Amino acid sequence: MLYVEKLYEQLGREKVTQQESELKKHSKDESIHEAVTPDVVCFPESKKDIQMILRIASKYQIAVTAYGAGSGLEGQAIPVQKGISLDFRNMNQILDFSPEDMRITVQPGLMKSELNQFVRQQGLFFAGGPDYDATIGGMAATNASGTRAVRYGVMRDQLLDLEVVLADGMTFHTGTKAKKSSSGYHLTSLFAGSEGTLGIITEITLKLYGIPEYSTVARCTFETPELCAIAAQTIQLKGIPVMRMELIDSVSIGIINEQCGLDFPVNHSLFLEFAGPKNTVAEEVKLASEIMHELGCEDWAAASDPIEKEKLWEARVKLAVSFQHLKELKEIGGDVCVPISQLPKLVSFTRHSMDTSGLKGAIWGHIGDGNFHTSIMFNPNADGEQALAEQTNDAIVKLAIESGGTCTGEHGVGLGKKKFQEAEHGTALEMMRRTKQLYDSKGILNPGKIFS
Amino acid sequence: MLYVEKLYEQLGREKVTQQESELKKHSKDESIHEAVTPDVVCFPESKKDIQMILRIASKYQIAVTAYGAGSGLEGQAIPVQKGISLDFRNMNQILDFSPEDMRITVQPGLMKSELNQFVRQQGLFFAGGPDYDATIGGMAATNASGTRAVRYGVMRDQLLDLEVVLADGMTFHTGTKAKKSSSGYHLTSLFAGSEGTLGIITEITLKLYGIPEYSTVARCTFETPELCAIAAQTIQLKGIPVMRMELIDSVSIGIINEQCGLDFPVNHSLFLEFAGPKNTVAEEVKLASEIMHELGCEDWAAASDPIEKEKLWEARVKLAVSFQHLKELKEIGGDVCVPISQLPKLVSFTRHSMDTSGLKGAIWGHIGDGNFHTSIMFNPNADGEQALAEQTNDAIVKLAIESGGTCTGEHGVGLGKKKFQEAEHGTALEMMRRTKQLYDSKGILNPGKIFS
Repeated sequence: MLYVEKLYEQLGREKVTQQESELKKHSKDESIHEAVTPDVVCFPESKKDIQMILRIASKYQIAVTAYGAGSGLEGQAIPVQKGISLDFRNMNQILDFSPEDMRITVQPGLMKSELNQFVRQQGLFFAGGPDYDATIGGMAATNASGTRAVRYGVMRDQLLDLEVVLADGMTFHTGTKAKKSSSGYHLTSLFAGSEGTLGIITEITLKLYGIPEYSTVARCTFETPELCAIAAQTIQLKGIPVMRMELIDSVSIGIINEQCGLDFPVNHSLFLEFAGPKNTVAEEVKLASEIMHELGCEDWAAASDPIEKEKLWEARVKLAVSFQHLKELKEIGGDVCVPISQLPKLVSFTRHSMDTSGLKGAIWGHIGDGNFHTSIMFNPNADGEQALAEQTNDAIVKLAIESGGTCTGEHGVGLGKKKFQEAEHGTALEMMRRTKQLYDSKGILNPGKIFS
Repeated sequence: MLYVEKLYEQLGREKVTQQESELKKHSKDESIHEAVTPDVVCFPESKKDIQMILRIASKYQIAVTAYGAGSGLEGQAIPVQKGISLDFRNMNQILDFSPEDMRITVQPGLMKSELNQFVRQQGLFFAGGPDYDATIGGMAATNASGTRAVRYGVMRDQLLDLEVVLADGMTFHTGTKAKKSSSGYHLTSLFAGSEGTLGIITEITLKLYGIPEYSTVARCTFETPELCAIAAQTIQLKGIPVMRMELIDSVSIGIINEQCGLDFPVNHSLFLEFAGPKNTVAEEVKLASEIMHELGCEDWAAASDPIEKEKLWEARVKLAVSFQHLKELKEIGGDVCVPISQLPKLVSFTRHSMDTSGLKGAIWGHIGDGNFHTSIMFNPNADGEQALAEQTNDAIVKLAIESGGTCTGEHGVGLGKKKFQEAEHGTALEMMRRTKQLYDSKGILNPGKIFS
């Protein structure tokens, strides 16, 4: 292909490859969406390289799909129109670090774990993103979040500034290094979560937080998901700044016990983490315990010792992998987010749907945010089972949107949530389309994502 | 004028006026920017009324400038191209209240004080916006914030959903009622701070917070602004969730003492507020006191009794009005925001500039956010004094932008900060212009604001 020749010519052989193994690696992410191999993979080392790649892609009308760690859950990195996969592995530098301002500027390919390793020496940590590892660029592009969002907010909330390159090579910064601004339109938030469809992020300036000196983990159970929701609401109303607050439904606890040989009380369970100065944490735990007991919780347990903490949090950690040994099964992951008051309805509906469909599945959620996850398991070789799993997931999403919620709390739209965009956004979707057109008139940036 | 006739015809006489007193009222805000009377003032009562007004304005190419409480500080509500002033005083209803989800949906004309009055009965409060009263719509449109932003974030962070009407009548919601979402482009943040230049906000869904059960106020002083900045950084690094953290420079303290008959220690002063469950607050105050004393603070004082608290915070409150008795003087208000590490440089530079210019002035800041305010006083009848005050303010803004900051932390761009948009945003300004063009191709929405 002529454009590939141009890429070799302009970037040199070490930044461009068509090796089969690389093409295959860049054809997929962690989702069940169908793999598509790109024509070529580029490994830019600078903004200039990216401008060059986009110039060539623009000229030849070639799709460009950004690729971080391939850890996405909705197919954002799959190059559905082939073309160029833009891999950031060689753009993983720390560009500027200001510990006194609790701020750092990095390239998009840096892994969250590498970032935390680097800033830890200054008593700082990066609070955004999911619990597993990913690139900072991927997290920004999908507006990722995880268990700590209840305290620190989502990825969008961590961003002070982005440097972006548009399809036509135009390059700019969306923000400043100040903590807040009311100047101009807030383009930072527009790019956060745009999944590489509006521009390519080349630099990211992030907020950091002080590592809490002390933490305590607690667990308790309730008879109903409703009581769990009320408990979570009360914690928030009281202004206890929990670090994490997670729900696991009773059936899922049973599954974890069975799969992992544990003996957690089989009931709807809340898992909490408190973190901060030692004495403050002690007061928060005391107050939370009082609140939970007043609401009729059972099995309250709290731990501050590292090993004890890990044991208590084990159910939450094991949940994600509790089905992984079932090699013959695949998973559809749900990720809706609703007002907390609507969560019990979603939990009941989902458990009932799974029960009646006969599919195995787990239910858990970042209950403080109303973010509700499901793993629905299916056997891809069993007739109709995948369709049944998809129908079940679709019905959950439909109910979430009808309940004032969103089809995705943190995974993003990618390929999997495209079909819900109309239902969720209505007329706003038309403005989103026009925005896409404004930023990427040729439609070369991650085509086929977010919009059909 | 024909279009005014159409307005009378379509909306009725009670929603449209050309009374001199109303035209005059809608010609200005709290800034020093020159007043311009609109041709007509409309008082819509519904989204339908607004769609009707915009249809007429669009047809006749008439400027439409939204007006809340007229409390803006950069001229956003001044109808510089005359036309229609859109007053929201009859759109001040509460549409939906979900205390269990700590969420409320209101019309834009509701005052912050009315909102807080309403939700207080449920133990809730609205944490956004400035310290003085304003409409929720005005706060959203300018991305306002104030002393509590250090804990709760700015106005943009309080918004879950907006309903907006574009110039062509297209109407949509930008978000959902869920606390977080990764679905679609984040139009909520685009409209927050767009100052009525992209569309007219007709409904606002906000986060609420639990009223802290207890609070303590503290004050201490340091020899230099640098030490104040280090103290603020340390508080944040330790993860103490201060409710407010304010800086007043020593000269300003002297002015307050003199003007208001007080005897605060004349030194660079930090004012802090801690709020939450009683025992947690006690622990936070203890820790903060230790930190401040380790850094060599003087004059540490703390109070939890309501009257004592008020006395301690009095200097901060009085600062804003300390020059108001000087009837012959006018004020230029500064509002830059920089990384905290850059704040001492700004303080020194500003004080030096005021000293050498001979202008009176106060310096204070929301130090936790690096938001730095100045009041530069001038006599409008004294030859060249206004120009000197403006030059001084311009030099501060220039230094703030060069220091990685922004020309406005919370007041917005309006008329006053237009001249700094190019310096602050560079190439991004071009994308902002194109965004404006996309949303309002006829340029009828608050023309002359943000952009020239």
